[in-house]
Amino acid sequence: MSSRRIGLWFIGAWGGVSSTAVLGVSALARGVTDETGLVTALSIFHGVPLDGFDQFVIGGHDIRQGSFLQSVRDLHSRSNVFHEAMIRVCADDLEKWSANVRPGSIQNSGETIAGLADLAAAKKEETPREAIRRIQGDLQQFRSQQQLDQIVVVNAASTEPPFELCPAHIHLAALDEALEKNEIRLPASSLYAYAAIDMGLPMVNFTPSLAAGMPALEELAHRRKAPICGKDGKTGETLMKSVLAPMFAHRNLQILSWVGHNIFGNRDGIVLNDPQNKASKVKSKDALISQIVGYKPQTHVSIEYIESLDDWKTAWDHIHYQGFLGTKMILQFIWQGCDSLLAAPLVLDLARLSLLAQRRGEHGVQKHLACFFKSPMGVDEHDFFVQFGWLAEYARHCRSA
Amino acid sequence: MSSRRIGLWFIGAWGGVSSTAVLGVSALARGVTDETGLVTALSIFHGVPLDGFDQFVIGGHDIRQGSFLQSVRDLHSRSNVFHEAMIRVCADDLEKWSANVRPGSIQNSGETIAGLADLAAAKKEETPREAIRRIQGDLQQFRSQQQLDQIVVVNAASTEPPFELCPAHIHLAALDEALEKNEIRLPASSLYAYAAIDMGLPMVNFTPSLAAGMPALEELAHRRKAPICGKDGKTGETLMKSVLAPMFAHRNLQILSWVGHNIFGNRDGIVLNDPQNKASKVKSKDALISQIVGYKPQTHVSIEYIESLDDWKTAWDHIHYQGFLGTKMILQFIWQGCDSLLAAPLVLDLARLSLLAQRRGEHGVQKHLACFFKSPMGVDEHDFFVQFGWLAEYARHCRSA
Amino acid sequence: MSSRRIGLWFIGAWGGVSSTAVLGVSALARGVTDETGLVTALSIFHGVPLDGFDQFVIGGHDIRQGSFLQSVRDLHSRSNVFHEAMIRVCADDLEKWSANVRPGSIQNSGETIAGLADLAAAKKEETPREAIRRIQGDLQQFRSQQQLDQIVVVNAASTEPPFELCPAHIHLAALDEALEKNEIRLPASSLYAYAAIDMGLPMVNFTPSLAAGMPALEELAHRRKAPICGKDGKTGETLMKSVLAPMFAHRNLQILSWVGHNIFGNRDGIVLNDPQNKASKVKSKDALISQIVGYKPQTHVSIEYIESLDDWKTAWDHIHYQGFLGTKMILQFIWQGCDSLLAAPLVLDLARLSLLAQRRGEHGVQKHLACFFKSPMGVDEHDFFVQFGWLAEYARHCRSA
Amino acid sequence: MSSRRIGLWFIGAWGGVSSTAVLGVSALARGVTDETGLVTALSIFHGVPLDGFDQFVIGGHDIRQGSFLQSVRDLHSRSNVFHEAMIRVCADDLEKWSANVRPGSIQNSGETIAGLADLAAAKKEETPREAIRRIQGDLQQFRSQQQLDQIVVVNAASTEPPFELCPAHIHLAALDEALEKNEIRLPASSLYAYAAIDMGLPMVNFTPSLAAGMPALEELAHRRKAPICGKDGKTGETLMKSVLAPMFAHRNLQILSWVGHNIFGNRDGIVLNDPQNKASKVKSKDALISQIVGYKPQTHVSIEYIESLDDWKTAWDHIHYQGFLGTKMILQFIWQGCDSLLAAPLVLDLARLSLLAQRRGEHGVQKHLACFFKSPMGVDEHDFFVQFGWLAEYARHCRSA
Repeated sequence: MSSRRIGLWFIGAWGGVSSTAVLGVSALARGVTDETGLVTALSIFHGVPLDGFDQFVIGGHDIRQGSFLQSVRDLHSRSNVFHEAMIRVCADDLEKWSANVRPGSIQNSGETIAGLADLAAAKKEETPREAIRRIQGDLQQFRSQQQLDQIVVVNAASTEPPFELCPAHIHLAALDEALEKNEIRLPASSLYAYAAIDMGLPMVNFTPSLAAGMPALEELAHRRKAPICGKDGKTGETLMKSVLAPMFAHRNLQILSWVGHNIFGNRDGIVLNDPQNKASKVKSKDALISQIVGYKPQTHVSIEYIESLDDWKTAWDHIHYQGFLGTKMILQFIWQGCDSLLAAPLVLDLARLSLLAQRRGEHGVQKHLACFFKSPMGVDEHDFFVQFGWLAEYARHCRSA
Repeated sequence: MSSRRIGLWFIGAWGGVSSTAVLGVSALARGVTDETGLVTALSIFHGVPLDGFDQFVIGGHDIRQGSFLQSVRDLHSRSNVFHEAMIRVCADDLEKWSANVRPGSIQNSGETIAGLADLAAAKKEETPREAIRRIQGDLQQFRSQQQLDQIVVVNAASTEPPFELCPAHIHLAALDEALEKNEIRLPASSLYAYAAIDMGLPMVNFTPSLAAGMPALEELAHRRKAPICGKDGKTGETLMKSVLAPMFAHRNLQILSWVGHNIFGNRDGIVLNDPQNKASKVKSKDALISQIVGYKPQTHVSIEYIESLDDWKTAWDHIHYQGFLGTKMILQFIWQGCDSLLAAPLVLDLARLSLLAQRRGEHGVQKHLACFFKSPMGVDEHDFFVQFGWLAEYARHCRSA
Repeated sequence: MSSRRIGLWFIGAWGGVSSTAVLGVSALARGVTDETGLVTALSIFHGVPLDGFDQFVIGGHDIRQGSFLQSVRDLHSRSNVFHEAMIRVCADDLEKWSANVRPGSIQNSGETIAGLADLAAAKKEETPREAIRRIQGDLQQFRSQQQLDQIVVVNAASTEPPFELCPAHIHLAALDEALEKNEIRLPASSLYAYAAIDMGLPMVNFTPSLAAGMPALEELAHRRKAPICGKDGKTGETLMKSVLAPMFAHRNLQILSWVGHNIFGNRDGIVLNDPQNKASKVKSKDALISQIVGYKPQTHVSIEYIESLDDWKTAWDHIHYQGFLGTKMILQFIWQGCDSLLAAPLVLDLARLSLLAQRRGEHGVQKHLACFFKSPMGVDEHDFFVQFGWLAEYARHCRSA
Repeated sequence: MSSRRIGLWFIGAWGGVSSTAVLGVSALARGVTDETGLVTALSIFHGVPLDGFDQFVIGGHDIRQGSFLQSVRDLHSRSNVFHEAMIRVCADDLEKWSANVRPGSIQNSGETIAGLADLAAAKKEETPREAIRRIQGDLQQFRSQQQLDQIVVVNAASTEPPFELCPAHIHLAALDEALEKNEIRLPASSLYAYAAIDMGLPMVNFTPSLAAGMPALEELAHRRKAPICGKDGKTGETLMKSVLAPMFAHRNLQILSWVGHNIFGNRDGIVLNDPQNKASKVKSKDALISQIVGYKPQTHVSIEYIESLDDWKTAWDHIHYQGFLGTKMILQFIWQGCDSLLAAPLVLDLARLSLLAQRRGEHGVQKHLACFFKSPMGVDEHDFFVQFGWLAEYARHCRSA
């Protein structure tokens, strides 16, 4: 296997999640870190033919100037993560891969994201069809220059505002016709998704943005044999919700209210401070409790940008519940996690599992990856342990195959 | 079914857990509360022939003077639980059932428990065999006077100190011979367990005490067709451990240390303030993390008696874990639950499920009840969701039977 | 002193704070509770001639139908406070005093408060001058019917939206002329304040509403010899801020950010869920940190209505600060207090101290009462211990006088 | 002033507190950090003639091999504090000063501390008098070699077990006679204290150890004109207690119980894990609440060594209190601070203030420094704000002098 060359393409390349994942690829390949945090390193995956980290070549899109090394150094100095020694060992890889990053697109990403863009090419006027062609050109050049056997595309860019679907987003034929006539809008995440899927590349949407989340693109994924999955990585507070809500359900304890307050201060936080972008995220974080317990307790979710916290996302959740004989009780938790470090290994897991799925001939929505997402595509089940059971079953199947 | 009469016999009858369970039986039978908190009220049990709460008659043992009504009023005034109106509706039941409570035993229960005893009969010198006969006499009288079709015995008494087993506790024949010759010691919990099991009664051990936890009594359970289960109800902090540790395991996040501090102020707290008795409890609370994650993080568990908290058990847990690229992160939770109200419905669930098991011809250790216990007999699995899966599977089996 | 009869008049009589204070007056007078929570019961006030609770007669205004007993019973059953026995002892007092409550006013109180009103008299169209006359009529009737020697008026009604002052609110002459010509608006809190102060009655504003908070009414207070104080009782999270911020200042630890999330579910919470009314409260809770530390850290305050919590106001505060050599550290606190029970004794303290001040010949803003308020009138100092020093100094002065 | 040369001598030189303070001296002198965390940098000290950090020369005693640079690098890598760049700038200073550190003494410091010692000279058998002479020789050599105008000695070594005083510790004459006859024991901290005070050097005891805490040494301090102060720096949880307890007192809220659990994992933690050494610390942390509120609520303090936390001391405090009408409420706080970084600036403050005091002709116990200590010598007042008032008053006095 190890002679195959794999391309890992990040939308939002200079962001904290991508940069951390890229540092991780280098550090793992060079043996200067262990596999803690990687789900695909669990024993259930022993014997499953996943790609090694020394096979990966990195590329991507971003709307800002930057480099992987600069993003990693920023995280190091502001959020107090990574060790100086690890950065030094990986610096050359990061610099080399930075040369593979191309200007992205800000179409329909909202004003806050547009305000962050400083690359002319990312901001230039182009039709959706033109943008898709430009993106595909970047990916084709990456494939040929790097002599890649397989490429996976991961969307780890900032959250876009909610996007209203219209009938032309339902059927691929209608979508294609509307694109030809330049009579339809798509958010940037969906331009990337169209481009990648149309080239038959697996596509991971780690954000709450739309991306491939429309029937027309699911149709395209089946036609082009591309596995897709999303959306919105389940890394912290929402992971806890999907773990604790089943406990209350199984003990027949009635949740009266569930309040979750999230504070953090990285670039993602600046974007989420825009009420439009925040709406996508809050929706993704708030829906699952009702699904799990089967009734609607009062819920409240807030996300606030607190600059001093940088990448350290802190969540306080207050769960008020009723037990036997009408007695009200309280569970509170405080989650203090580094956002990028929680997300990055899951991104690498999803990349490996999407590449594997494609080699196994699977395409369309990958439902067995639900445990990685806040709003898993094509799945109503939010109980983390049920979802994890699906993944373990899949791994068992791959081993025995 | 509803014409059958069921005896529910509590060891430690005047304690908070028993009294709350007894109030619950009355309140459920009289329709003045709902089934929140009862696992056996979950939809997975619809169609399973469980006993109704209007079929139950209550009795028990205690080492102190008291009554169910007095215990309930104490909890109401000191811990601010139950509504005055509910107590009034149920008062007659409680008073009637209090007449069925007999003096227990303090043999080898430790000095603190002995110090709480104020009934001469509970403190009198008797051989283990004599104590067993006295207990069986009480149970036989209960059965005949109340014309009961089936009886279940629940140990909800205070935690005894750890008890060292000797060879004579292994084989029933050896145990019986040693008892005849008065050459062996047994803690009170095991006297009750022997007495009940020997009469073929299902026995639930909701405490960390020894009770039926020795091979000789398991042998007796099979011989007398008695289902047994235990030990130590999983109601709060340990429930959380069995829910959260799998999350860390499934995400390959390495637990560095797990510290749990518990404070509460009920009678159980007085007993657990004795270092001897506390040792049993801490052991029960501390073991499961390593089993779940497969390595040994540093753990620390404390239990302290803080009088003002009464029945409101508060736990602060600090979980220090390592994620990707060596990054240390923290999860903390604060659990504020009323001990008796969390435990009581589980006691009723276990009583109903033990009675059902006996009617289905099952005997010996009931492994499918593991999800109810901190230290489930005969089971090494501590992952709450795996354990709950067993219970759900059992319920499915009962329904289809 | 004990032959003097004192009237205690509550704006928002049926609210949680007023009802609790009224129950407290009865319970203290009848000796069924102790003085815990009363600042005026501290040793610094020994020897200061404060009114006894057996001298008080209660009356008030409200915009809803209700009674003190009903409000107290609601709090008891929903928020699990007060003991049944205490309510029984005090029930007659509460019923008798309920007869002294008159319809209030909803002028400029915002739509949410208007929506709660169910008394025709409270909602009827009247000019500000007419409303003031009606209120004064109620107070005069109370004084004569009850043969009162002194009356104090306390505003404990729900928070009104912010109110913009205009030039006519500056000078009393201009205000009076504008009222005569019906050319000016006043929020209800200011109508009550005008009415009371104009009659020479001490006025306590326990809310963030405007009330006497304008130069024209301060002028009136001096002219009519009425002591006034406010605004917004400092009972929980903000009390903590005024205690902890000085600690950081005195240790030269730099506050980077201070986030405070408040959740609760009483009627006040419904009103504060209206963004207009919430604005007044958040402003009052957020300003003091900068004043204390002398620079502007990032701050965020939220207040959310979570129905299940009833009167149990819960605050989570996350304080991020920087210490020596640039090291970032964290203090978090969780405050779980019953809003009405924290506020009521302070209301009684302020009533007693306002009555005392008037007897001592003091009038206008009572700056020595700053430690009771989130936004103390006429005072820039927010350090709780400096403020408390002023009160202690005043008490010392009263004793030696 | 700046031509004067000042010696700063640390007992426990390689410990976290000393090493951080030493790094701080260098970083401040070289202008690569600001004065955050230094109380003596507050505006109340503007105009007070304190020594500048560029005047300090560092020396000290330790019982282990090591160096300032190694200790600083350990803290950096294990506890994730300090920036690489700052360490580089200060490395030469640290190395130069490390050469001034001499072997200390382990006399009566308990087995755990003795077990950490790896210097033969620190472990050798010598009489107390011999040890004192050796220590004085080290200090004299430091003074002459470095041409110092003034020296201050700071005890920042690990906590010793409690030490029982005997009559010979009361009067200096008796102590000296007993030392001559080698008929008395002294813990190492007191040997250092005797040595320093006898040379007329100011002595700061930042630990709970005995040091100068006996009448005979106070007598010596007056005779030799040496200012002394201690004991046990108030840096975290206890600081919070001395801030919050007055709040409860001033609001007449009755504290029912105050539970404090402390976890951390630095070398100090290893020593405090020895029950003997822990006893000194817990006593120092637990006494002040009763003094402040004037009655004895139930209190509980634990300190546990949790290795993964390194220098990050985390405290969870649960304060249960009663308000008006018997209502029980709860305040909890979680303190996550880096122990050495909180302590080090206070050590520098105390050094500067002790040097100043000596120049002002003050000697004996410096009561105006009470706000820095958990168990301030000669002072019963534990209210932080009262204590800080004394310091501010002293500063005012120094400015006007």
